[in-house]
Amino acid sequence: MTVAEPVLYEGLAVRVQQQIQQGLFQPGERLPSVRKLAERESVSVSTVLAAYERLERQRLIEARPKSGYFVLHQAREQLSEPSVCCPPARPVPAHISPLMMDLIDVRGRGRLNFSTAMPAQDTAIARTLRRTFTRLSREGQYLHDGSYGTLDGTESLRKQIALRALDAGLTVSADDIVVTVGCQNAISLALKVATQPGDVVAVESPCYLGFLQMIEAAGLKAIEIPSHPADGMSLEALQLALEQWPIKTLISVPSFSNPLGSCMPAENRRALVDLLEKYDLTMIEDDIYGEMSFCPGQRPTAVKAFDRQGRVMLCSSLSKSIDPQLRVGWIMPGRLYSEVLHQKYITTMSLPELPQLAAAELMAGGQYDRHLRHCRELYCSRLATLTDLVAEHFPPETRASRPQGGIGLWLELPRHVDTTRLYYRAREHGFAFSPGELFAMDDRYRHCLRLIFSQPWTDERRQAIAQLGAWVKEASASH
Amino acid sequence: MTVAEPVLYEGLAVRVQQQIQQGLFQPGERLPSVRKLAERESVSVSTVLAAYERLERQRLIEARPKSGYFVLHQAREQLSEPSVCCPPARPVPAHISPLMMDLIDVRGRGRLNFSTAMPAQDTAIARTLRRTFTRLSREGQYLHDGSYGTLDGTESLRKQIALRALDAGLTVSADDIVVTVGCQNAISLALKVATQPGDVVAVESPCYLGFLQMIEAAGLKAIEIPSHPADGMSLEALQLALEQWPIKTLISVPSFSNPLGSCMPAENRRALVDLLEKYDLTMIEDDIYGEMSFCPGQRPTAVKAFDRQGRVMLCSSLSKSIDPQLRVGWIMPGRLYSEVLHQKYITTMSLPELPQLAAAELMAGGQYDRHLRHCRELYCSRLATLTDLVAEHFPPETRASRPQGGIGLWLELPRHVDTTRLYYRAREHGFAFSPGELFAMDDRYRHCLRLIFSQPWTDERRQAIAQLGAWVKEASASH
Repeated sequence: MTVAEPVLYEGLAVRVQQQIQQGLFQPGERLPSVRKLAERESVSVSTVLAAYERLERQRLIEARPKSGYFVLHQAREQLSEPSVCCPPARPVPAHISPLMMDLIDVRGRGRLNFSTAMPAQDTAIARTLRRTFTRLSREGQYLHDGSYGTLDGTESLRKQIALRALDAGLTVSADDIVVTVGCQNAISLALKVATQPGDVVAVESPCYLGFLQMIEAAGLKAIEIPSHPADGMSLEALQLALEQWPIKTLISVPSFSNPLGSCMPAENRRALVDLLEKYDLTMIEDDIYGEMSFCPGQRPTAVKAFDRQGRVMLCSSLSKSIDPQLRVGWIMPGRLYSEVLHQKYITTMSLPELPQLAAAELMAGGQYDRHLRHCRELYCSRLATLTDLVAEHFPPETRASRPQGGIGLWLELPRHVDTTRLYYRAREHGFAFSPGELFAMDDRYRHCLRLIFSQPWTDERRQAIAQLGAWVKEASASH
Repeated sequence: MTVAEPVLYEGLAVRVQQQIQQGLFQPGERLPSVRKLAERESVSVSTVLAAYERLERQRLIEARPKSGYFVLHQAREQLSEPSVCCPPARPVPAHISPLMMDLIDVRGRGRLNFSTAMPAQDTAIARTLRRTFTRLSREGQYLHDGSYGTLDGTESLRKQIALRALDAGLTVSADDIVVTVGCQNAISLALKVATQPGDVVAVESPCYLGFLQMIEAAGLKAIEIPSHPADGMSLEALQLALEQWPIKTLISVPSFSNPLGSCMPAENRRALVDLLEKYDLTMIEDDIYGEMSFCPGQRPTAVKAFDRQGRVMLCSSLSKSIDPQLRVGWIMPGRLYSEVLHQKYITTMSLPELPQLAAAELMAGGQYDRHLRHCRELYCSRLATLTDLVAEHFPPETRASRPQGGIGLWLELPRHVDTTRLYYRAREHGFAFSPGELFAMDDRYRHCLRLIFSQPWTDERRQAIAQLGAWVKEASASH
């Protein structure tokens, strides 16, 4: 047991982790002794111990009896990063894979699920939520006065969202925020007010399939902008597209994107806002994973923080961090605030009060922060297990993303492996993942797949990944 | 105290009411004695007494000591019915009054509210709801398992909705129903899947402003079909419009329409479905007031009940009957089921579980039926008070609708009275109603207004109506 200050040891753990990632300490090498590091960093011995313990839990280092702490040979380091896809093509009317509805059907059907991007089911937050709901109901704190409630959402929740936005470099007031039915609803409102049918929307490639569905349903055209597995959307490619096509808006997940897990560097975010201004377009910033960095204290600055003209509509929710069933999301619509509020009014009006009040309580009381800290560690170590499994069971040509946050891993397999075929095979074997064809409008990712790693590892789940690897090897060899 | 069977005495009360309305018994005339009626109807004396007591509460009859029961002079009968508006014009891109956002702002601001169509705030259902929410939360019956929940909605709720639909002549299964965020959300989904931008949508005239807003936001054209204050949409006018214009879908509130309170006769409903087939269009049937007939047992058969081809999408909610804040609505999309489910998926995904479970419990346990019975009586008598006040304080040329259900009364004032001007005057005096300009795309109802009568009468509220009447008289005289 350590008595170290969380802020101190977490910060130290991050610095050591960064030094490892920068190659300052190579796999197998010994780290500075506890005493030495404590001196150098001017912290107590227990703080260093807590930091090292944390890195051990993250499976980045190991303690060897009487020898000290050593950098672990990271299995994930064996795997190359996925390649960046082809340069932007022309905008095309969005059309999506019919596989999607099949996948929805898979949800909650008791299959081993590596496909739905949902938070861990083995945390204590469900109990906290239940207690909060019960107390709020009993106290009758929510309105049941026959009225429709406030259109923009419960004030206490909007206040908490505004407070937390400070961490993302954003200074907004509660009145700049509109509560929505999850992030999907926020983005669909944003897309509606930012476009007219026939307009061109730029998206990342690979792209979260939900965006392509919305673009299709709205009668819009999509242009896919190549994205780097580490840095996110390529600004060079975006600029090229902006010069050629009348792009009306841009949808991006700059922080721990789905499916790549990439995180756009701060300088790119600033440059992206410059592009928005230069080419006069708006941006829909999906920040749903923004608080889910694996490195404590490394919450990325939102793109919206660099936005001086209200062009960026930041959308987020608690679905990935607490519970999708809360259905609590929000949008900061910038200069399109009135349009978003009107669109919300005519599509859903106000939203249920109780989940909003419960969310506000959790955020205000510190339970949310504790839960987030716990999840970050959990996901970091679950990802490590997954990359180990992939390195062990998949062919060596397999490339894997290196997410620094979020809950999804992207794999690029040898070109001729058909992941849609593997998807159906897996379904018959009782497990599900997301095949690459869902993340583009053509077949360019037919040899890729996404695995969600938020759920606890069981023997069954390990075996499913091993089985998948065996099939991939088989498909590779048969070519 | 009577010990009469509710079913018996309610049925009898309805028959007597109908006889009064058909003119069999005129205002001031004596009704059959209790003993005589009991003999004729083969029921007990207590059943007749219960029926007469009910009609007394509805202010249709009065007991005179030692003389028997007499038909009351109905103030509402003094008021003529509103006229039917002009024949259909051409379809025009929908555009709505900017007043709407002002009205939303009025909601819940502590003003005397005759403008928001919401249920009575003085019933016991709020307490029942609170208890149900608390117990469900404590028992943790709703999911908080990290998953997204079922896309079509909680099964127990869909089952209850399907069971109740039998009363409307509908045989549907739980799997034919999709739960939505209230009725507005249901209609917005229906409109989205039934139309493409630029299409023509037929609506009733006067028309609920929410429909015009949705039509405007979807880039559609609207054609306003004249509606009769008693029978609803004119089928002759509709046919005329169908012959001239390529109408894609039709939105109608056949049961206790908003704002007229009209109820389309069964034969018209059947003929309407024939028109849908003949001219190959779909229909959005807003059934939100369907269970709110003032005559017990007189729940109108839904238009959808006559529909053999899945053309009718029935939309409803519990917002007018229980509580808008439940945000529980639904749609029976007919042959566009998959399209509606997909559209729901991309705009909101699943919805919060707790309100759905609570609604299902209330419906299954009989509390909902008891509450509905209570509300019907309440609203019937509150409407009687309102029409009395209007007859007393408004100029004699005032015409009033005669709603047989719902919660809104429509007044037609002398042509030169400007109700928008009156609206602003009322706002300054601390009360709000809905001016006629909100119910059409042009000025045709600028001399009309809608009053919601669901809330309990207080001296303050009576004075507001008297004040409004005085202003109308003043405006009439000054012409």
